[in-house]
Amino acid sequence: MGDLIGTAVGGTLYYVAKSEFDRVLALPVPDVQRVGIFATLARINTLYMIARAGSGHIGSSFSSLDMMAWIELRGRRRDADGQSNDLFFSSKGHDAPGLYNVLIATGALDFDNIHMLRRLGGLPGHPDVNVPGMAFNTGSLGMGVSKAKGFLAANRLLQRDGRVFVLTGDGELQEGQFWESLISAANGKMDNLVVIIDHNKLQSDTLVAQVSDLGDLEAKLKAFGWHVARCDGNDLAAFSATLDDCMAVTGQPKIIIADTVKGKGVSFMEHTSIDSDVELYKFHSGAPSAEAYVAGAQELIDLANRQLAGAGADALLLEIEERPQAAAPPPGQQRLVPAYSNALLAQAAKHANLVALDADLVLDTGLIPFRDAYPDRFIECGIAEQDMVSQAGGMARGGLLPIVHSFACFLSARPNEQIYNNATEGTKIIYVASLAGVLPAGPGHSHQAVRDISSLAGVPGLTMVEPSCEAEVGALLDWAIDENDASTYIRLVSTPCDIPYALPQDYTPRPGIGVILADGEDVVVIAYGPTMLPVAIDAAHKLSNNGIQARVVNLPWLNIVDRDWLAGVVKGASAVVSIDNHYVVGGQGDRIADALATITDAPPLVRLGLRDVPPSGQNAEVLDALGLDAATIASTISAALAAARKA
Amino acid sequence: MGDLIGTAVGGTLYYVAKSEFDRVLALPVPDVQRVGIFATLARINTLYMIARAGSGHIGSSFSSLDMMAWIELRGRRRDADGQSNDLFFSSKGHDAPGLYNVLIATGALDFDNIHMLRRLGGLPGHPDVNVPGMAFNTGSLGMGVSKAKGFLAANRLLQRDGRVFVLTGDGELQEGQFWESLISAANGKMDNLVVIIDHNKLQSDTLVAQVSDLGDLEAKLKAFGWHVARCDGNDLAAFSATLDDCMAVTGQPKIIIADTVKGKGVSFMEHTSIDSDVELYKFHSGAPSAEAYVAGAQELIDLANRQLAGAGADALLLEIEERPQAAAPPPGQQRLVPAYSNALLAQAAKHANLVALDADLVLDTGLIPFRDAYPDRFIECGIAEQDMVSQAGGMARGGLLPIVHSFACFLSARPNEQIYNNATEGTKIIYVASLAGVLPAGPGHSHQAVRDISSLAGVPGLTMVEPSCEAEVGALLDWAIDENDASTYIRLVSTPCDIPYALPQDYTPRPGIGVILADGEDVVVIAYGPTMLPVAIDAAHKLSNNGIQARVVNLPWLNIVDRDWLAGVVKGASAVVSIDNHYVVGGQGDRIADALATITDAPPLVRLGLRDVPPSGQNAEVLDALGLDAATIASTISAALAAARKA
Repeated sequence: MGDLIGTAVGGTLYYVAKSEFDRVLALPVPDVQRVGIFATLARINTLYMIARAGSGHIGSSFSSLDMMAWIELRGRRRDADGQSNDLFFSSKGHDAPGLYNVLIATGALDFDNIHMLRRLGGLPGHPDVNVPGMAFNTGSLGMGVSKAKGFLAANRLLQRDGRVFVLTGDGELQEGQFWESLISAANGKMDNLVVIIDHNKLQSDTLVAQVSDLGDLEAKLKAFGWHVARCDGNDLAAFSATLDDCMAVTGQPKIIIADTVKGKGVSFMEHTSIDSDVELYKFHSGAPSAEAYVAGAQELIDLANRQLAGAGADALLLEIEERPQAAAPPPGQQRLVPAYSNALLAQAAKHANLVALDADLVLDTGLIPFRDAYPDRFIECGIAEQDMVSQAGGMARGGLLPIVHSFACFLSARPNEQIYNNATEGTKIIYVASLAGVLPAGPGHSHQAVRDISSLAGVPGLTMVEPSCEAEVGALLDWAIDENDASTYIRLVSTPCDIPYALPQDYTPRPGIGVILADGEDVVVIAYGPTMLPVAIDAAHKLSNNGIQARVVNLPWLNIVDRDWLAGVVKGASAVVSIDNHYVVGGQGDRIADALATITDAPPLVRLGLRDVPPSGQNAEVLDALGLDAATIASTISAALAAARKA
Repeated sequence: MGDLIGTAVGGTLYYVAKSEFDRVLALPVPDVQRVGIFATLARINTLYMIARAGSGHIGSSFSSLDMMAWIELRGRRRDADGQSNDLFFSSKGHDAPGLYNVLIATGALDFDNIHMLRRLGGLPGHPDVNVPGMAFNTGSLGMGVSKAKGFLAANRLLQRDGRVFVLTGDGELQEGQFWESLISAANGKMDNLVVIIDHNKLQSDTLVAQVSDLGDLEAKLKAFGWHVARCDGNDLAAFSATLDDCMAVTGQPKIIIADTVKGKGVSFMEHTSIDSDVELYKFHSGAPSAEAYVAGAQELIDLANRQLAGAGADALLLEIEERPQAAAPPPGQQRLVPAYSNALLAQAAKHANLVALDADLVLDTGLIPFRDAYPDRFIECGIAEQDMVSQAGGMARGGLLPIVHSFACFLSARPNEQIYNNATEGTKIIYVASLAGVLPAGPGHSHQAVRDISSLAGVPGLTMVEPSCEAEVGALLDWAIDENDASTYIRLVSTPCDIPYALPQDYTPRPGIGVILADGEDVVVIAYGPTMLPVAIDAAHKLSNNGIQARVVNLPWLNIVDRDWLAGVVKGASAVVSIDNHYVVGGQGDRIADALATITDAPPLVRLGLRDVPPSGQNAEVLDALGLDAATIASTISAALAAARKA
């Protein structure tokens, strides 16, 4: 869920080489002791990996690392060649850095990957099957048990033997699919299925108990017909014994509630160290500060050395990597989410019936100022998007103006039918979808919202908009609240952006009508939002150097285009280029094409955008890989123009 | 869920006038006795309504009718003017005929509506807020508790007093959203929320316990922190006492497990009368046969008279309506779902790894022959589409070829994110979505799948197709299995259709390429599927009478169009017309527009399809209302052609 993007840590970073893991694995000590040391070393590398990448999930990697190491090293039965029919995967998925480092340490993943978290061609922010050892693509929550059941059905039909171990979060249990998936596993007596809940008590923002309390979790799970066990998931002796006990149970799927500590291993990252007056746990996502990295790494190194000494082994040999200091972000970057926070506060002051709903992303979606100012009008729904959206439907029928928040990837898809159902009731609801578009590319495709326009554009009465800069955020929110009678989907880019344009002083949103940001007569480039419009402007500069004058248009309306306006704006140009921060199919360009197809003698349309599942990586390298960098766009436009003029 | 369309019953039908209900409501007998008689009269009218409409859900209307009558008459607190701040609605929604008749009998709905079930301007097949007394649009399962919570939040903020009563099904509890929605109600101590489970033990096809057993339902609900009570829901003394007890409980939301009999009131419609060797309950949806109607009505009339005599009242006065015999369907109609059943069997024989997944629609989706032939390869998932789709993902990763079945309205939306997640894994899965398109229009918008192309077209690697006739069903399934390396969505119309065309003998599906069904040079009409293609052919005949020659093209590819083929097929025409059995936004026409926008001197495009939420009604009247009948299409095309030629 929450996926803040931080800054890579510069200076001296430390990691542990494969040979040191091999040394630990050969230590003549009990399994529990050996795996415990292994896990500490994997934590050092996980911290390195995340610090170097500038983002990643420390907290849940650390809470689950002991268990992940145990399952990989001891839980999965292996043949003489080390092959296993037993499957292990994480349903929550954001503990991927921890799992990657377990696999790197065992050699299942190439060691060089340690330097490649969230880099193109490296390890994506969330699991992907193209990475060795990853059974499934996870990161969107609640799908794990279902996938495991499917795999076990395949085992049964193909007469393969094999267990499946699924790690889940605890916040994840708020997703309805989790409970939906429990039923048939119990009815099917799937005793090859073992679910381990990494019960670290915290979800993205804060305590599970505060967000959406799970109540008597053991009673719930037992009532669903599962064998339930509970233990300390950071105590390998307890965990391994519990796992062994569970494996002996037949005729039931098993679930272990593993009580863990989020951030386990570094004192000040452990959630139990949070003062009671601190609201937000700081190490869910993002990167540690340089100071936190140094202190955390030192704690882990000291712990490893104590553990090694306890095993009668030599002290840890560390690899050292000198990293450049990250460049400071350029001054003047715009951030749409804080702009939204302010715009929402202004509207809330005017509309007493305005309420805001959140699905455990209060920090990422900019809702903290609203929550603090209007606690009565803030509804925390937990990681339960379907419930949240249908609740909004009930509120709207009851006379409120609900504003629903989540990441675009989840909000457009998980409650897709619920949004349609609300629309058929003709009520007015505003959906605010942040983390929209292909950037940040670090988290990977589960979090890259490049299909949301498509999946909701067909909802009657739902107008979809995307602001291009801070100033447009408030303008469009005001339009949605004060002008639009029906529902609106506001698509918000979360990455900080350099904005090389400004809206006119007297700018007022007019449905279906765009704003010319740069003028030119040869080609019309239509785009939206602060990710692609700056690239389009840059491409226009490059084209201008080659004698091609481009008109760059900001069209913030994602699923409506005013035909007459469009006819005017493209008149005389030799080509029209649509750039979608989205898949081409179903993007804004579809609406432009639809309008152009009715305009006599319209210039030909060139579509730019995504054609396939985007990779994870750094922002610039991913735009390059997708051909959405300014240079490639400029040359694509040049070629299209040449072809159009020849035709 | 299941929504079979039957045949209206002809001959003598009986219903009870408002005055008779008024007489019953004035009887000086105890409440329980009075409401019991009222419910029997309402059952007579419900049976009339469904027999006359030719479709509707008898079973669950009858199981819940006693409770619905009690809540409307006694449960909702009313002021002196009969107004109530207490809300009652059905989350399952397919018991709408029962609820309509309660409201018709109390005068909350105009009496004439009794003749207007599933008719344009009358009462839709599932609840819609435009009908007086309907709090919410329901019919897609699992949303009710969430909506109720939202309404209660509005009550709280707007300082209104009021309880909310929500009726759910029991099969409905398989939906994850139900469990998702329980959590915050308990945490919020919402003691103004009362959920009643119409626990009639049967879902669409057969016993809940066979489809996806709910296990210890009381334990589950208690573990979720709700106050749980249980009673006989067809025994008004027991139900009313239980409801009163529940209202006295504070600090918890309440849920009543009401044990009921599906089809209650007519001996042979009661599920308890099914012989143990009968697999399918016959009165879930559709219409009764004429014989069943007569026998059922007589039983209910006899019961009413016994009840009236017991209350010392005169016998029932009945209204008589003579109905014409429904015309026999024209010979030679094609049915795509049985054709699919056969095509699937043929493929199953060839592919041992082919498995079929069902979400409680085994009858509607044509899976019974497969299930009987390959019980090991049939996976019944219950009403749990998210779980089903993610299970399919697990199966595909495990080496199976999963074919996933549901209605298009649910399959495209409820597991929308899960389908995308599967796609990102690059596995091959086939989704078969029946009840596709605007027809049958009787069930209403919750079941009219006119947004599915849009909501899935952007999924990379998912090819969407719709067969135009029985012969094309097998051809496209074979293509999906034997030719396509990636995933396919097969959109199946469920209504029987008159097909005035045949595919060429040597027909082979070629991605993005259509088939000319009727030729002409003036205008090119592109459509798909057996709903709109016959209308297009009919429109072409009408145009031909006016000297306009239309080329009618079947393009079964919903989200891909071969540009070069399109350029050829439209060359020389004065206009291109795209007809979508779907919303215009996001329909096949978007892909046609996209391709046309790259073709120099392409004729202008005219888009036909839906622009707003479709009404419920009879098929022909709804097509007329939408302007999608042959005459309107012909005149639209004539006008477009005249405009294009003038331009």
